[in-house]
Amino acid sequence: MNYKMIRYIIGMILMAESGFMVLPMAVSLFYKEFDILMPFVYSIMLTFCVAAMFGLKKPKNDLVFARESYIAVSAGWMLVSFFGAMPFFLSGEIPSFIDAFFETVSGFTTTGATILSTVETMSKGLLFWRAFTHWIGGMGIIMFLLMLTQFSEGHSLYIMRAEVPGPSVGKIAPKSTSNAHILYGIYTALTIFEAVLLLFGGMPVFDAVTTAFSTAGTGGFSVKDAGIAAYESAYIEWVVSIFMLLFGVNFNLYFLMLIGKFKIALKSEELRVFLAVIAVCTVIMGVNSAEYYGDLSVAIRKAFFQTTATISTTGFGGVEFMNWPMLCHSVVLVLLFLGGCAGSTAGGLKIGRVIMTFKMLRKEAHRLAHPHEITTIKFEGKFIDKETRSFIMVYTSAFFVILAVSSIAVMIMGHDYETAFSAVLSCLNNVGPALGEVGHSGLYTGFNGITKLFMSLLMLTGRLEIFPMLILFMPSTWRKH
Amino acid sequence: MNYKMIRYIIGMILMAESGFMVLPMAVSLFYKEFDILMPFVYSIMLTFCVAAMFGLKKPKNDLVFARESYIAVSAGWMLVSFFGAMPFFLSGEIPSFIDAFFETVSGFTTTGATILSTVETMSKGLLFWRAFTHWIGGMGIIMFLLMLTQFSEGHSLYIMRAEVPGPSVGKIAPKSTSNAHILYGIYTALTIFEAVLLLFGGMPVFDAVTTAFSTAGTGGFSVKDAGIAAYESAYIEWVVSIFMLLFGVNFNLYFLMLIGKFKIALKSEELRVFLAVIAVCTVIMGVNSAEYYGDLSVAIRKAFFQTTATISTTGFGGVEFMNWPMLCHSVVLVLLFLGGCAGSTAGGLKIGRVIMTFKMLRKEAHRLAHPHEITTIKFEGKFIDKETRSFIMVYTSAFFVILAVSSIAVMIMGHDYETAFSAVLSCLNNVGPALGEVGHSGLYTGFNGITKLFMSLLMLTGRLEIFPMLILFMPSTWRKH
Repeated sequence: MNYKMIRYIIGMILMAESGFMVLPMAVSLFYKEFDILMPFVYSIMLTFCVAAMFGLKKPKNDLVFARESYIAVSAGWMLVSFFGAMPFFLSGEIPSFIDAFFETVSGFTTTGATILSTVETMSKGLLFWRAFTHWIGGMGIIMFLLMLTQFSEGHSLYIMRAEVPGPSVGKIAPKSTSNAHILYGIYTALTIFEAVLLLFGGMPVFDAVTTAFSTAGTGGFSVKDAGIAAYESAYIEWVVSIFMLLFGVNFNLYFLMLIGKFKIALKSEELRVFLAVIAVCTVIMGVNSAEYYGDLSVAIRKAFFQTTATISTTGFGGVEFMNWPMLCHSVVLVLLFLGGCAGSTAGGLKIGRVIMTFKMLRKEAHRLAHPHEITTIKFEGKFIDKETRSFIMVYTSAFFVILAVSSIAVMIMGHDYETAFSAVLSCLNNVGPALGEVGHSGLYTGFNGITKLFMSLLMLTGRLEIFPMLILFMPSTWRKH
Repeated sequence: MNYKMIRYIIGMILMAESGFMVLPMAVSLFYKEFDILMPFVYSIMLTFCVAAMFGLKKPKNDLVFARESYIAVSAGWMLVSFFGAMPFFLSGEIPSFIDAFFETVSGFTTTGATILSTVETMSKGLLFWRAFTHWIGGMGIIMFLLMLTQFSEGHSLYIMRAEVPGPSVGKIAPKSTSNAHILYGIYTALTIFEAVLLLFGGMPVFDAVTTAFSTAGTGGFSVKDAGIAAYESAYIEWVVSIFMLLFGVNFNLYFLMLIGKFKIALKSEELRVFLAVIAVCTVIMGVNSAEYYGDLSVAIRKAFFQTTATISTTGFGGVEFMNWPMLCHSVVLVLLFLGGCAGSTAGGLKIGRVIMTFKMLRKEAHRLAHPHEITTIKFEGKFIDKETRSFIMVYTSAFFVILAVSSIAVMIMGHDYETAFSAVLSCLNNVGPALGEVGHSGLYTGFNGITKLFMSLLMLTGRLEIFPMLILFMPSTWRKH
């Protein structure tokens, strides 16, 4: 195992983080919040020093394979959350370090689960950092590094896959550096576009920027306790809903559109199912909650917001959906399972995987009834080979096994059935809000320290798509070969 | 498609059923319950006539392949439940036909879920029939037919697989007829042995026979409202617990023991895990509920009963486990998932499948970290080939997808979270009791007609191990090829 490269990659990740923290520090300077200046300075220095200790010089042998990549990425994400928690903790605004760690993991993994029962008393600098972690985590830290540097070509693919193991990464451009540039370009452009539209709606600049960060990463942290509802603006609700939808779409499709291949982009099977699910759920929940609002058009707007917020795994509060009829709760539960498209910033099982799982179950039933026929599966017009098919089934099984085992674990930690199951599902899929004690605002204050750490691990497991975290904790990974 | 053979097999199944019904009729004669005599006579005649209409003569072309077998078995099981419900309905003791159908499905699938809030007012003849459906369903109707007749050799394997697709069937003896004889022989011997032991414990003959039927099929119907607790006998509790354990073990192991291969039988990986899980859960629940009973030895006995009742998917009532501490509920929930060993009369995911799923997830994580290593999986000392591995993953995924989709469907039908999830899991795994509204007695009276039909389909889906029912309802099955 190339330990030197693992150290080097983790060092680079932490170095990048210390750089990222300069921005919220500048924000706190701008707002003259001098009491949180030093906490930021200390955090930046600490992170920088640790990064330097991990090693700034690229080792001579810079070859990394799958194992090193998974270890570097999963350990890197844990450490980034650890050091990212420093400003919250050192400033005293989140007095418990476990709480600060939970909040930061929730930020980087773009979950949006929170332990803060009120955010409006927080300093602007920390609120900015909180929203900014969503933006960084949405596209990924490794992806950011790939814009700046280049690991030995061919092997950078391993590292990228460890962070975003979606099926469509690395196919846009031949070089991973330009690939990362294109993706971050689209990401930044969409973020700015949303912020500008929100400004037009009368949102203050600070709120517009942080809301755009949260939407872009499909996170869900807000700078208002009431979430998007605080702005009492139908326009803002529509803008945020539409951008939640947009950030749930595979970024490759935007690239295809940019190079003029509209037809190919719009033919995407995953996109069509994604849009169809959103349309159906919006109509069901809108019609069902119309009586509550006394106005169908308001109900449809609220239903669209709730649908896009859940399926994109953003989880913005802003809709009093806990008061809606029971049927709506079931619809939200379905949406909690799905997640966005592959290659987007959204989490969850992902639409593509869900489609392929159902296709495979149908195929398997058909194969049992007709054992001598040769059956194939097509997705996005291409045949899916055996390896991919087998991996998708393994992934789906792993997802459900982790869901079942973790729910029972959280029940044992003293939570009721509904809370345990929905909170685990919500954290694993990086949504944030849940049902039961957690409620639609995604407030996890009722959980004890150990449970919060456990939920933090679940969020990381979900964001990195299960296997990197499993590999990190598996004894056989560390055995000599 | 060989429709004639499908009709013939279904006809045979119903013919067997009309024969089975003679036994409870005799019981009702013995107990001089003349008012239910005619309902039995009508039911037997009706079933016989329909069987005759389906065809009594073996078609010239008696070749059946996978598709025909799955259709015949799943349709056959549905029809057997339909006609088996007749005595309950015609006697007026279960006035609603849907309720009678639910009860009979629950009987044949050995679930033990009931819509009867009291059973002690029922006639003996119907109580006998109710318990007898467990005994028939436990080993299987096709398996019974295979003792009497022989479908074209080689093809009978298809039909057997459709009813019990467990991995170990059909390997005991070269001929499926002798195979069926051996299995039914072991089954009958164990049932008689239990009944005799229960008689020694002072149980009335009628109760001993019906309890033995229920235990053997791992069903859970009792002739007392309080279940096994009604007998207030520690001896009887121990006997029933031990037999629930015994019927959860792969019958092939008993055959191995019969021919003297004790060592091989006791080496079984699945058996060892099964026993280990029972031991661990008994100790956890016993220690945890000791305070409730004020006596550790009583608590351990009750915990052993609850553990074996749940893991064997029998689900006998008899323990007030709803009053136990929360941790016990979680343990029961874990046990609800597992089920017994493959090749036993128990339902559930089955221990062997759970072991292999975990092994495969570990392997997959290892393979991702070490893509160039060749990894294999061993189970029971043998390498598991790719086909089997892939099918286990598909099965596990299908199980969880059905669990998730059905739970949400039952929620939409108006039940709370805990009830919906636990009832679906319980019916799918053929256990019976659940949590929430259903409670530990497995009483489904609070469900409406449509939900009861839905739960009936789930029980059949679980008993036939998912795919036969999927195949029956899939359009591509009925398309011409």
